[in-house]
Parts: sequence; C-alpha cells; structure tokens
Amino acid sequence: MEERLAELKRRVLARLKPSDEERARTLSVAQRAVGAARRQAEELGVEAEVSVQGSIAKDTWVSGDRDIDVFIRLPPSLGRHGLEELGMKIARGAAAELGVFIESYAEHPYVQAFVEGYRVDIVPCFKLERLEGEVTAVDRTPFHTEFVKSRLSEELRDEVRLLKGFMKAAGVYGAEIKVQGFSGYLCELLVIHCGGFEEALRAASMWRPWRTVLDPAGHYERSEEALKAFNQPLVVVDPVDARRNVAAALSLQRMAEFTAASRLFFKKPSELFFNPPPPKELRSVASALRQRGTHLAVFKVDVEKTAPDVLWGQLHKSLEGLETLLRSHGFEVVDASAWSDEESTAILTFELASLSIPRLEKREGPPLDEESHVESFLAKHLGGDFKGPRLTGWRWTAYTSRRLVDAKELLAVEWRKARLGKLIQEAASKSLEVLVDEEVEALLDRIEGYRRHLAEFLDGRPPWLRAYQEAVRVENRPSQVG
Amino acid sequence: MEERLAELKRRVLARLKPSDEERARTLSVAQRAVGAARRQAEELGVEAEVSVQGSIAKDTWVSGDRDIDVFIRLPPSLGRHGLEELGMKIARGAAAELGVFIESYAEHPYVQAFVEGYRVDIVPCFKLERLEGEVTAVDRTPFHTEFVKSRLSEELRDEVRLLKGFMKAAGVYGAEIKVQGFSGYLCELLVIHCGGFEEALRAASMWRPWRTVLDPAGHYERSEEALKAFNQPLVVVDPVDARRNVAAALSLQRMAEFTAASRLFFKKPSELFFNPPPPKELRSVASALRQRGTHLAVFKVDVEKTAPDVLWGQLHKSLEGLETLLRSHGFEVVDASAWSDEESTAILTFELASLSIPRLEKREGPPLDEESHVESFLAKHLGGDFKGPRLTGWRWTAYTSRRLVDAKELLAVEWRKARLGKLIQEAASKSLEVLVDEEVEALLDRIEGYRRHLAEFLDGRPPWLRAYQEAVRVENRPSQVG
Repeated sequence: MEERLAELKRRVLARLKPSDEERARTLSVAQRAVGAARRQAEELGVEAEVSVQGSIAKDTWVSGDRDIDVFIRLPPSLGRHGLEELGMKIARGAAAELGVFIESYAEHPYVQAFVEGYRVDIVPCFKLERLEGEVTAVDRTPFHTEFVKSRLSEELRDEVRLLKGFMKAAGVYGAEIKVQGFSGYLCELLVIHCGGFEEALRAASMWRPWRTVLDPAGHYERSEEALKAFNQPLVVVDPVDARRNVAAALSLQRMAEFTAASRLFFKKPSELFFNPPPPKELRSVASALRQRGTHLAVFKVDVEKTAPDVLWGQLHKSLEGLETLLRSHGFEVVDASAWSDEESTAILTFELASLSIPRLEKREGPPLDEESHVESFLAKHLGGDFKGPRLTGWRWTAYTSRRLVDAKELLAVEWRKARLGKLIQEAASKSLEVLVDEEVEALLDRIEGYRRHLAEFLDGRPPWLRAYQEAVRVENRPSQVG
Repeated sequence: MEERLAELKRRVLARLKPSDEERARTLSVAQRAVGAARRQAEELGVEAEVSVQGSIAKDTWVSGDRDIDVFIRLPPSLGRHGLEELGMKIARGAAAELGVFIESYAEHPYVQAFVEGYRVDIVPCFKLERLEGEVTAVDRTPFHTEFVKSRLSEELRDEVRLLKGFMKAAGVYGAEIKVQGFSGYLCELLVIHCGGFEEALRAASMWRPWRTVLDPAGHYERSEEALKAFNQPLVVVDPVDARRNVAAALSLQRMAEFTAASRLFFKKPSELFFNPPPPKELRSVASALRQRGTHLAVFKVDVEKTAPDVLWGQLHKSLEGLETLLRSHGFEVVDASAWSDEESTAILTFELASLSIPRLEKREGPPLDEESHVESFLAKHLGGDFKGPRLTGWRWTAYTSRRLVDAKELLAVEWRKARLGKLIQEAASKSLEVLVDEEVEALLDRIEGYRRHLAEFLDGRPPWLRAYQEAVRVENRPSQVG
C-alpha cells in the first residue's frame, strides 16, 4: 500500500510539477514584470520594494498555472490615498511596458497585465513591519510568502502540488466565491501543519464541521477559543495573524466534499482522483429527461463582464431566490445550479418534478375552537369556486386556487418577486429567456461550456465520486491477458 | 330573532312531523307485527313480552322513516342458546306471516321483514330486571325506550324531530359505521339533557373534543372520571347504564361537523339547514378536472351483499390502506372517499395532484460522520444510473429510481400490498377496475348514485356549509319587488 501510494504520487507529480522549461518561461515573465515595476518606481523616485509573491515565489505552483503575482510594497507613510495613487501609477506603467492590461478593484486596486498567456497581477501594498491594526489581504500576502518559504522543504513543496492537484480535480480548489473552496495558502498550511499530502488527507478524513481547528503557530491555547472567535465550518488560524481564519472563505459544502473525497481516496487510491472521468455524455436533453421523468427550467440572462466574485455572489443569491420562488408556489425543486462563462451569459438551471402543478391547493386552516380565526378563514375561503372548505377532524381545510401553475410562466412573469442579485435583476429585465425541457437543447450548441455544465448537473455526482466509482470498476474488471 | 326561530321551527316541523295518516299507517304495521309475534309465542307456549321499541315507541320518528323495531323479550333463564333458538323461531314465524323476510346477525340474531314499504326488525332479547353483568345492545333498548318515554313531553318530542331533521340534513345522523354519527337515542338524550333543539345546538356550539361530558343521570361526580373511563371525542353517559358512552360510535369528524353546523345555524338561521342545496352539478369529469388541474383515480370492485356495517368498516379500512399505498409511493393525495350502493358495487375514489410522478426520487442520506451508514448508503446507491449520489452540505443525498410512477399502474398492480379489508381484497382479485380521469365518466351513467357522490366529493363542502352559503347568498340578494 505504502509502495503503491508512493508510486502513484510519483506518477501524478510528473504531471503536476512544472518542467524546467515551463519553470524558466514562467520565472522569466515574472522577472520582466518585477524589472518593469522597479524601473517605474525608480523613475517616479518612490521607495518601493518589488517582489514576486504567491505560489511562484513559494515554488508551490502546478504545471499549467498561468497566474503570476507581483507586489509593490510602499512605505505606510504614504497613507491609503498615496498608496493608491502612487502604487497604481507604478503598476500601470509597468503593465503598459509588458503589454495589454486592465485595472481591477477587489478589496484594493490593482492592475492585471496579460503577457505571453500569463495573467500578471501587479499589486501595490504597504510594507508593514508587523501585522497589526487594520490590515488588508494584500498587506498580509508577503508575510504568508515568508512564512511558507521558511517552512517548506523541496519535498514538501511537491506535497503541496499533490494536494493542489487533488483539490483541483475534486472541484474544491480556489477561495473565490464561485468555488468557496481552499486557497493556495490554505493548501500550503495543511501540508506544513500535517506534514504532507497524505497526512493532510488523513486529517481531512476526520474533520467535523464547526469542531475542527488547525492552529499551526499555536496562537490559541484551547481550540474552543478559536472556534468561538471564528464560528466557521473549518478554522485554520493564520500563523502570521491570529485574528484571521485562513479557511474563512471555505463553505461547508466544499469542506464536506474534501473530507468525503479524502476518505474515498484511501479506500481506493488511484490516479483517477487527479484526473476524474467526465460525466455521462449528454446526447439529448429530451431523452435524458424522459428517462428520469423530471423537467428542466432554465433562466438565462446576458450579463456584462464583471469581477467574477461579484458575478458569482449575485448568481448564488439569485439561484436561491428563484428556488424559493418556485418552492413557495408549490413546485418541487429536485436540484438547482448556476453557470456562467463570466463573459456574457449566465444561466440558472432548475430540475423540477413537474413543470405544472394542480390549480387546486389544499390549505390547512384553524381548529374549530379558534373562533376569530375560523371567522376570517371562512370569510376568505367560502367563495372558493371548486372545492371546500370542509372540516378535517376538528380543523378547517380550504382548497384555494393557484394563480400560477406553470413553472415557465412563473419564472417568466414573477421573477421580479424573487430575491435576485441586482446585476441579475437588471440583466433579466433586458434579456431574460426562460426555456424548459427540450427547448434547452438549443442552448447546448449555442453556448460553449453549458453542455458540459448541464451534463454534470444531470449526472449529479461530484468528480471525486466519479473517480472512485471508476477506480472500483477498473479494479473489479477481469484482467485482460494480452 | 326568537320569533323568527320559532316560525322557522314551525315550518320545518310541519314537514318533519308525521301526518295523522302516516302515523296511523305506521302504527298499524307495527301492531300487526306485534300481534304476529305474540301469536307465535303463544303457539310455542313461550312466555314472551312483545313490544314496539325505538323511535316509533318513543314517538320521536320523523316523517318518511320506514323502520319499525319490534322486540320479543324472553326470560333470561332460557340462556343465550335458548334465546337464539326460541326467539328466532318466534321472529321467523311472525315475519313469515307478515311477508318477505331475511335473517340478520349483528351483535345478535334478528329477522328483518319487509311490509308495505317498511322494514320491520323483529328482535329477540332477554327481559332483564336491571342492567348489570354482561348486557347486549338489544337487552338495553327497552330500558332506553322507558327512560325516554318518561322524560319527553309532546313538545320535546317535536324538538327531537327537529334535531334529527337537522342532523340528517347535516349528514351526521346515524350511528352505523358508514356515518359514525349520532344515534336516535343520542338525539333524544341531547334534547332531554339540554332542554330542546336550540339548546342542544347551543351546547354543541361549545363542545370541545375529548373535553366534553354530558351525564344526564349524574352517574359520575366529576367529568374527568367520565372522560378517563371512555376516552372518546364526546362522552354522553347512558342514564340507564353508567358503563356505556352513548356517543361511543361518534367519530371526531361527525362531532366537529355538528359543532360547526350548529354555530353556522345561529349565524344565519334558515330552513336551508334542514334542506341543503345539492352540490354543483357534475356535467363532465374531464372539464371539472381540467379546471382544477387535479386527477381522479378510481378503485372499483363488485361486492356481494353484506351487512352494511361490515361493508363500510372494510371500505374505510381499504380507503386508508390505498391512500397510504399511494402516498408511500410518492403520490400527493388531495382527497379520498368511499362509496357503495351496499348491493353490488363499491368504489374508492382518489383525487390526486398528478397521475404520474418523476422516476427520479431524491433521498436524504446519512451525515458524513456516520461512517457505517455512509458505507452501506454508498454501497446501495453508487450504482444508481441517473443522478448522484452527492453531498448536500455535510450529508449524503441519493437519487433513486422509482419502480412505479403511474398511479393507475400502482393501484392496478400493487393493491395487494395495501392494507385492505378482507372482503374488498377478495372482491378486487375477482373484479377490480382501475379508472382514471375521463375514464371515470363511463361510471356515472352506469352506476346510479355514484354521480351524486362524485359531485359531492369534488364539491367538497359539507351540506350544512352549502346551506349556510346559500342562506347568506339569499339574504344578500337585492329583494325583488314583484
């Protein structure tokens, strides 16, 4: 088993670890960016410390990663305003030297340059001595880099790559709102704290939500204190800042998936966990639905390009809002999911037990004894035109008439009553399309990526479970003698 | 108001009270039966006391009643066996003299003779001095007759007729299993105890189930004792037998209906409560269903003639059994009801939200922590062919495939798995027809009585509510000047 695992890791790592060539190319782009920023700072006469940060700096990146972080650390004496003005001037200048760029703003302003297929984030921040007082995420980053570099041997860096590879394949990697999973730094801390890739998975196998604390630097004496301080499904205390839970962005869902995936990995260790089989191919929506006897309702809008975190926040909120709308009108929602290309289209997909429900709706009324309730209940329901009211034992029952009994109509007409994200609301008032069942077919060829999403949605199994099932299947297959 | 009520009662009573002619005809039939039984007893040399019992003897019957009870009271020294042999010999002989007859057996054997449109029950029983030890219902009857006769003035007898008329119209009259309502004796006791028709309705307006005790003879010191002794929705202690709850056969449903009907009567006193308007006429099943968006499934069997109490007991049980079957398979049952002509046909009718449900069924699984459950859950559901399993937060979710997704097929194929009455089970194995939606149309002309039942079922409103609604409507109508 140990042998097999070691062999498995070797094979996987051969794919995950950047080749010398890839490494040289990436580092060269990073150095060009650093050089450009340094020149800009010098020209402006600003005292700036420019450095590569993130996974490139820590040498924990995985082959294929095309994100480079370059930080411009400036004196805190500049103040927030000076930092934004001067820092962005340097960043802009550097980016202009490198190629195409855009300006972005998350918690702080920064510049994204696109160079030779890489996305180079050029980020101004304060050069702090210690993390105290008000601190932003970018001010914290150099401290993370320092900490990780000081604790990771070359061997452990590969373990981080394995963990990242596993998490990416499992769909739990990335702290952005779309995923709500594990950040790169969180991966590194897990490897540092647990001692390696397998060790991190073994630990995760035992996790329980709202009960699990990892405190690599021992900031808290008792884990109860940390649990109380953060009140999040998983608590990983930042070694460089005791006030921060590194797993703050991790959702219960992604935590659960990682825990379950970890357990299954040890049941049937396989490279498939790093490269899961695709979901069942989606040939025909109509025939897939016929087979399962369910229905699809799709809420499609054209969106403008926005910061993905903003877009996904709104998509998640809108998905919940429309699901609530459907349920409150009496529809049974089997499943729901959001998809977007993050460029121009957003689609909320609902799998429903039925597209239409009876007009007649049974409603429980008050017991006979509650006289004033009975009075208003009868006043309200006596005129009902098709059934009841009547008694069910000691209680009144009414049958009311639903105004909307068609899911397509409900979504098309009543979406304004749902709690939607503002962007989605605006988009819907301009460009809403509601499609049901076989009408969805038309989207599959028109909208790249949605076919795969819908296939995954209908399949329902997470990728790591597909990996596990395939690993079991392969093992149980009678061996072929060639 | 008082005036109006008195006038209303007068008008109603004119219809409810038997005319002199009807009375003479009825009493003459009763006397013929008594005479015949007396002659039989004399011929057999048996010491027998023959008398009219029931509502004819108490003079509380309502115009149109065609039931006459003649009791043959025999010495207890005969013993149960002697009673049945000799008593039935007398009853049979008397019935043969009167005309067509059949023998019946409820708690005890008796003979039913059919004479000039009357049903004459000729019932042998013991002539007891006191009600003590093991006592059957028929031994108790003469004591009831005695008690009621001694307590009812002519005026109060009319009040009983009003109460019976009200209860019949409300559908709550009759202690038989089909109705599970108020017996004639219970009506009489209510009038005796409360003081009259309105007084009984006023009292009923305040009833609360499992809290209400009427004890006309004061057998119990505290009502809690009586409640504890009987544990039934309504307790009316039999004045002639403290061990018996006269309302034992009354269901919560009928009690609730009488209470609600009583309240509405005082809100809008009207003759309509004694003669409710019929339900909406049923023209087309298909269009009625289209309007309400629901569906009908009908379970029809041919039954042999049986004692109605036996048949209805089985029908109620079977109705519940099939409803449970439907629900447990995922169907939403809006309403259900049993009907029979008590001759040859029994029909269980279900109103359903849908005749077919998705093949896909969502099932909640164990939380991640329950390892052994998770293991068996995954073992069971991993092979599932169309969706999942997956995680929903910290819990597994599976999607299973229903074997039966069609209500008609379910009822036609799986009825054997439902808890049915034995007679219905046997009938179904020989003659089951399952009909849905417009197929039901064909029954309406074929089976007398079922059209009206189905109209009432779809209408859903109890007759007293139709009466109330009509009374309100009539009052609110602008008066016509002719």
